[in-house]
Amino acid sequence: MQKIAMLGGGFIGRFYAESLHGQRSRDRVVAIYARREETAQKFAADYGCDFWSTEMEAVIANPEVTMVCIALPNNLHEPAVMLCAKHKKNVVCTKPLGRNAEEALRMMRAVEEAGIFGGYLEDLCYTPKFLKALESVKRGALGRILWAKSRETHPGPHSDWFWDKEQAGGGCMLDLGCHCVEIARSFIGKEVKPVEVMCWAATQVKPIDAEDHAIALVKYENGAIGQFEVSWTFRGGMDLRDEVMGTEGTIWINNFLRTGFEMFTTGEGEGEDYVAEKAESNTGWLFPVGDEVNDLGYNHMFTDMFSACEAGREPVETFYDGYVVNAILDAAYRSATSKQWEPVAL
Amino acid sequence: MQKIAMLGGGFIGRFYAESLHGQRSRDRVVAIYARREETAQKFAADYGCDFWSTEMEAVIANPEVTMVCIALPNNLHEPAVMLCAKHKKNVVCTKPLGRNAEEALRMMRAVEEAGIFGGYLEDLCYTPKFLKALESVKRGALGRILWAKSRETHPGPHSDWFWDKEQAGGGCMLDLGCHCVEIARSFIGKEVKPVEVMCWAATQVKPIDAEDHAIALVKYENGAIGQFEVSWTFRGGMDLRDEVMGTEGTIWINNFLRTGFEMFTTGEGEGEDYVAEKAESNTGWLFPVGDEVNDLGYNHMFTDMFSACEAGREPVETFYDGYVVNAILDAAYRSATSKQWEPVAL
Amino acid sequence: MQKIAMLGGGFIGRFYAESLHGQRSRDRVVAIYARREETAQKFAADYGCDFWSTEMEAVIANPEVTMVCIALPNNLHEPAVMLCAKHKKNVVCTKPLGRNAEEALRMMRAVEEAGIFGGYLEDLCYTPKFLKALESVKRGALGRILWAKSRETHPGPHSDWFWDKEQAGGGCMLDLGCHCVEIARSFIGKEVKPVEVMCWAATQVKPIDAEDHAIALVKYENGAIGQFEVSWTFRGGMDLRDEVMGTEGTIWINNFLRTGFEMFTTGEGEGEDYVAEKAESNTGWLFPVGDEVNDLGYNHMFTDMFSACEAGREPVETFYDGYVVNAILDAAYRSATSKQWEPVAL
Amino acid sequence: MQKIAMLGGGFIGRFYAESLHGQRSRDRVVAIYARREETAQKFAADYGCDFWSTEMEAVIANPEVTMVCIALPNNLHEPAVMLCAKHKKNVVCTKPLGRNAEEALRMMRAVEEAGIFGGYLEDLCYTPKFLKALESVKRGALGRILWAKSRETHPGPHSDWFWDKEQAGGGCMLDLGCHCVEIARSFIGKEVKPVEVMCWAATQVKPIDAEDHAIALVKYENGAIGQFEVSWTFRGGMDLRDEVMGTEGTIWINNFLRTGFEMFTTGEGEGEDYVAEKAESNTGWLFPVGDEVNDLGYNHMFTDMFSACEAGREPVETFYDGYVVNAILDAAYRSATSKQWEPVAL
Ligand SMILES: NC(=O)c1ccc[n+]([C@@H]2O[C@H](COP(=O)([O-])OP(=O)(O)OC[C@H]3O[C@@H](n4cnc5c(N)ncnc54)[C@H](O)[C@@H]3O)[C@@H](O)[C@H]2O)c1
Ligand SMILES: NC(=O)c1ccc[n+]([C@@H]2O[C@H](COP(=O)([O-])OP(=O)(O)OC[C@H]3O[C@@H](n4cnc5c(N)ncnc54)[C@H](O)[C@@H]3O)[C@@H](O)[C@H]2O)c1
Ligand SMILES: NC(=O)c1ccc[n+]([C@@H]2O[C@H](COP(=O)([O-])OP(=O)(O)OC[C@H]3O[C@@H](n4cnc5c(N)ncnc54)[C@H](O)[C@@H]3O)[C@@H](O)[C@H]2O)c1
Ligand SMILES: NC(=O)c1ccc[n+]([C@@H]2O[C@H](COP(=O)([O-])OP(=O)(O)OC[C@H]3O[C@@H](n4cnc5c(N)ncnc54)[C@H](O)[C@@H]3O)[C@@H](O)[C@H]2O)c1
Repeated sequence: MQKIAMLGGGFIGRFYAESLHGQRSRDRVVAIYARREETAQKFAADYGCDFWSTEMEAVIANPEVTMVCIALPNNLHEPAVMLCAKHKKNVVCTKPLGRNAEEALRMMRAVEEAGIFGGYLEDLCYTPKFLKALESVKRGALGRILWAKSRETHPGPHSDWFWDKEQAGGGCMLDLGCHCVEIARSFIGKEVKPVEVMCWAATQVKPIDAEDHAIALVKYENGAIGQFEVSWTFRGGMDLRDEVMGTEGTIWINNFLRTGFEMFTTGEGEGEDYVAEKAESNTGWLFPVGDEVNDLGYNHMFTDMFSACEAGREPVETFYDGYVVNAILDAAYRSATSKQWEPVAL
Repeated sequence: MQKIAMLGGGFIGRFYAESLHGQRSRDRVVAIYARREETAQKFAADYGCDFWSTEMEAVIANPEVTMVCIALPNNLHEPAVMLCAKHKKNVVCTKPLGRNAEEALRMMRAVEEAGIFGGYLEDLCYTPKFLKALESVKRGALGRILWAKSRETHPGPHSDWFWDKEQAGGGCMLDLGCHCVEIARSFIGKEVKPVEVMCWAATQVKPIDAEDHAIALVKYENGAIGQFEVSWTFRGGMDLRDEVMGTEGTIWINNFLRTGFEMFTTGEGEGEDYVAEKAESNTGWLFPVGDEVNDLGYNHMFTDMFSACEAGREPVETFYDGYVVNAILDAAYRSATSKQWEPVAL
Repeated sequence: MQKIAMLGGGFIGRFYAESLHGQRSRDRVVAIYARREETAQKFAADYGCDFWSTEMEAVIANPEVTMVCIALPNNLHEPAVMLCAKHKKNVVCTKPLGRNAEEALRMMRAVEEAGIFGGYLEDLCYTPKFLKALESVKRGALGRILWAKSRETHPGPHSDWFWDKEQAGGGCMLDLGCHCVEIARSFIGKEVKPVEVMCWAATQVKPIDAEDHAIALVKYENGAIGQFEVSWTFRGGMDLRDEVMGTEGTIWINNFLRTGFEMFTTGEGEGEDYVAEKAESNTGWLFPVGDEVNDLGYNHMFTDMFSACEAGREPVETFYDGYVVNAILDAAYRSATSKQWEPVAL
Repeated sequence: MQKIAMLGGGFIGRFYAESLHGQRSRDRVVAIYARREETAQKFAADYGCDFWSTEMEAVIANPEVTMVCIALPNNLHEPAVMLCAKHKKNVVCTKPLGRNAEEALRMMRAVEEAGIFGGYLEDLCYTPKFLKALESVKRGALGRILWAKSRETHPGPHSDWFWDKEQAGGGCMLDLGCHCVEIARSFIGKEVKPVEVMCWAATQVKPIDAEDHAIALVKYENGAIGQFEVSWTFRGGMDLRDEVMGTEGTIWINNFLRTGFEMFTTGEGEGEDYVAEKAESNTGWLFPVGDEVNDLGYNHMFTDMFSACEAGREPVETFYDGYVVNAILDAAYRSATSKQWEPVAL
């Protein structure tokens, strides 16, 4: 059983708590840190936490806590990890690990030196479909992998800090591209070195400094290509799709938009309130997603994380993986500016 | 936490155990009854049960056990429930509840009189999509419900006893129709009385006495129609689909065959071993299902059952529901013979 | 080349003209009959007809005309055919052939006796997908056919006369069921005799005498079952789907609702005017159909009709087929009242 | 009416003839040129041509001929067009127009100077779905277009000359990319200038000099991005999909692989011979396409071409369009080598 301290009571903090307390789970969120008192109190009430505070270190240091879960804006991932290292608390951190590879590397080293467990919460590498597809790929059903693409697009984030480059570290490329990079890398093989990146990124619609649309190619040492398409300007909901091409086969995964059921409603009866994450309409044809928390990989992710921690083994997604993802994205940002293929520095 | 005794170590017994021990579950299967020693031993080894036996009563009576889960052929549901009543053990029973309404009624009464918890394991009324769709229907998004259809077809069952009318109590209509009847009834409203049934049933392909294909209409007192289509002669996998029509909207649910990802494999690399339950091919275009145990409703079902039991409330699917389903199917069997609409006797 | 007289300038008359004048067609609609002068004149102007009149016989008798196309309300099919017989003009007639088998039989005989060409315009037995699927079925790819279902549902017809039992001859069952009956019959085999019919029909929503929802089973002499589901109460567009089960395979055809492309529009740009026949929304997710006139079978239908006529052979869909369809639907109407299986009288 | 001389009796020549003689068409292929006598004779017999020859000029010059249709390997497009110009014969030419922009420009000028009609046979800009989607885009339903992607992949071409860089002019990028470039350009707007191209291309699988896989981004002067993904290494059939993102909406078009019906066959009955162009399996789950000739745009393309010619207007796809496509692909080839964004020279 894990007794979890949640850092951050926002969108993903609550989503994580739903997963952690879901079904017949033996784990419990016992402590919550949030910046504002009422957020912390509300979260504590909603999820039955024994302890809440607006002081991060107090929450991490709380002796009851066995595992810290970081669900804070990107610029706070590193300070939070450092406190975990200080207090020797096992830690799992949401994506992206750092705002860049430098940060990620420091976090990785701190965890290693402290001898604590570190897990990288890359949920989209834990969706049930992804896990099963990856097994097939590893078993050789697709032959040699030539190309793996991942796409994540939606109409834009819900919180202000995403739009501030300082806090966020980047735009949609860092926010969404981190998922896509790791998905493609997993299909191509984590043992294969990413070599160089070519990227286009632009601010096409949103009134922001950072990019709201980006496309990149990541070349691996064996000639395979990873590709991502990310955007905060997509209309119609949240689109999460992966494609893999191999010499002997093909895999297409849709992780969200058309995976639920089909519903038409005139809206004359009683409208729909919530259809699915980032759905943009609630009359006409709608496609509510069945079990978002499971379909998006949260359940399988926490199961792997905690089981790995308890068994003394590494989880599937480690801080090292988070660091590689950051390094690839750093190269992508350089390429968007230089208009050249840029090497991945690892 | 529940300490479960599993009765039956066959197909569904193992499937249930996967769900019960899945993710970070706090529940445990602690005892197993099977007819044959090696089945019981293997199951005990695989799922870490403390106790196994080829004597049913010994397993039910085991003092450690807090919940009995019946996963036996249909003719053994009643005797197993009677033993639970005798030993005052809470019980959940797989579908169909009885081979007919008479059996189901006796089981329901025995549970009531013993003052034990009784839950009806109708998993397809717990799939994540179904649960969400039902919420929309109840909220009124579809207006007044006019028609609800459910279809379950596959190439035929895996065990011999299904083909023996005495043990099974019927053919595909009892085996698969029980799901469909309860799905349609839930959409129409459990408070609405089913009035009469018209059914066609035939043995078109299989060398058996019982029907291998059946279609029926169930008329409810408010004029709504429930429909089922069931077959053991379908080729191409397992097809589970529901449709609901209301005055203000429509719902279409696909629960299985096209809900996973799309994979093409030449078979030159390494063939696929397991694609999905009852899939019939393993090269060419395949559609592996993501998380069968979750998508088929087992997780949400056991969560409701055990939470209900612990909270002292009724589960969503009760023995009474199982009895109503049997009563509707009894009318369907009569209709298939009389070629008339037959009243539902409740 | 055919010089066509169109009888009726309403919905289907215009649809037919689009098909007849479509692409690089060598055929031409040269004459139009309509009840009201302005309808006839507008049609003549739109399609470049040389001759128009509000007198039916004048149009049929026009010496330039080589082929009459009946696109009138159901009660006028018989009188129109009789005039064609009188003037020895080849004729193709929209569905249903008659309001009942008696009418259809008289029409069939009149055509035979006059020695003219008669074709039954059952477009849904000419959709490109249906034609290709039927070929596979005939080649044996599905083994022995066990069950064939066809479903046509939409939110209700556009013209008043459909709601008048006298003119229409029935409700949605005659209007839509005629398609479904012939689709299922074609898959099962036109040489196989339909034996008896069980039908449920009701007026669930619309303020009419006739049925707005019906479901029926048609038993064939070899044990195969044809099924139809028809309704004027469906919300969400027009749903045309067929399913065929055989001992060696399965076919699923979607002829309309999800066959086009996927489009999301906020409606902030410029709304969509026309999405597809009977589409019910024009913002949110929409599914415009590509080439309705081709996808619904009109092109292949007229090609077969006129080529057959010119080659002196029978078309795939004859007046005899229209008569069989009427006979099956007559049995369905009787069954809806008697609540029994009713024999098909041929 | 057009009297057509077909140059080339191979794969696309026959496909074109099917379309030209399809349904009730008034046009006729009256003459055929092929390199080998038996090809010419067989084609003439199959399609009822009056005249056949293994001498190209004789066929073009034939006085009966009103329109020449070029269906020859890429290196022969220019010589064939020059002969048409010499003999003042209207001409339509298959894609790609030239092997490079230089050739295409010479062809365009020759046609202009000769005062003959020239049409570019870009069928995928004439598919019914594409035409309807483009209308919506032009009407503004998607707002400002930000990104348009087109993908064409299949397991590789059927004829030897495709593998010879001299005859083909390039690999999959020229062969398939020409479609994709024009699709994206049409959605973004033909009046918008393409500025620069970034491209990755590689030979991943096939034993050839030319590329068998390529991905590129085309930047337009208004900031919109066109993207293509092309490959001869894809397994599973032929994949033709387009995506368009605008500020107010989204369009997704599938032009082939999942657009037909769904069929499962064990192969025990009678296997399927032909499923669809480049389908790779004929048992298990198959997806036969309904009306390939119509769905792939051939019918609408020839209708536009011949109607434009007869009306003295330009067709939607002109030799100028073909030239622009070649210019963009030239830049893509340069970029694949230089690893930089390369300007489009027009
Ligand atoms: N699929 C995923 O894995 C996924 C999805 C969404 C977000 N995320 C990640 O989760 C993290 C949080 O994102 P979110 O969507 O929950 O954001 P959010 O804005 O909804 O919540 C952030 C939380 O952090 C708190 N916070 C904000 N600024 C703070 C500050 N300066 N000091 C202390 N606390 C502060 C807020 O009060 C809030 O409780 C981000 O790193 C994001 O990338 C991951
Ligand atoms: N989705 C569902 O809810 C679902 C799915 C499958 C089966 N089921 C139900 O589960 C029950 C078992 O089906 P199954 O598919 O697991 O069958 P199975 O044949 O795979 O397993 C049955 C088990 O019962 C034991 N058994 C058989 N005959 C026995 C006897 N005479 N005495 C004692 N034990 C005996 C077998 O050894 C085996 O362990 C049935 O009631 C069936 O309807 C439900
Ligand atoms: N898929 C199909 O094959 C299909 C589709 C729609 C309709 N139909 C059939 O086509 C026929 C016409 O249907 P519609 O949808 O075009 O109807 P509609 O009402 O749109 O048009 C009917 C036409 O008949 C004329 N008309 C009506 N009453 C008349 C009268 N008493 N005397 C003379 N003319 C009269 C009207 O003016 C109009 O021009 C019906 O038989 C219908 O079943 C077939
Ligand atoms: N969707 C499309 O628009 C589409 C599809 C396929 C091919 N094409 C184009 O059509 C053209 C022909 O391709 P195909 O697939 O029909 O090829 P193919 O090899 O099947 O046929 C080519 C024809 O040209 C003849 N030919 C070959 N070499 C010749 C030579 N040296 N001299 C004279 N004749 C010669 C062959 O005998 C054959 O009749 C190419 O330009 C190709 O790009 C277009």
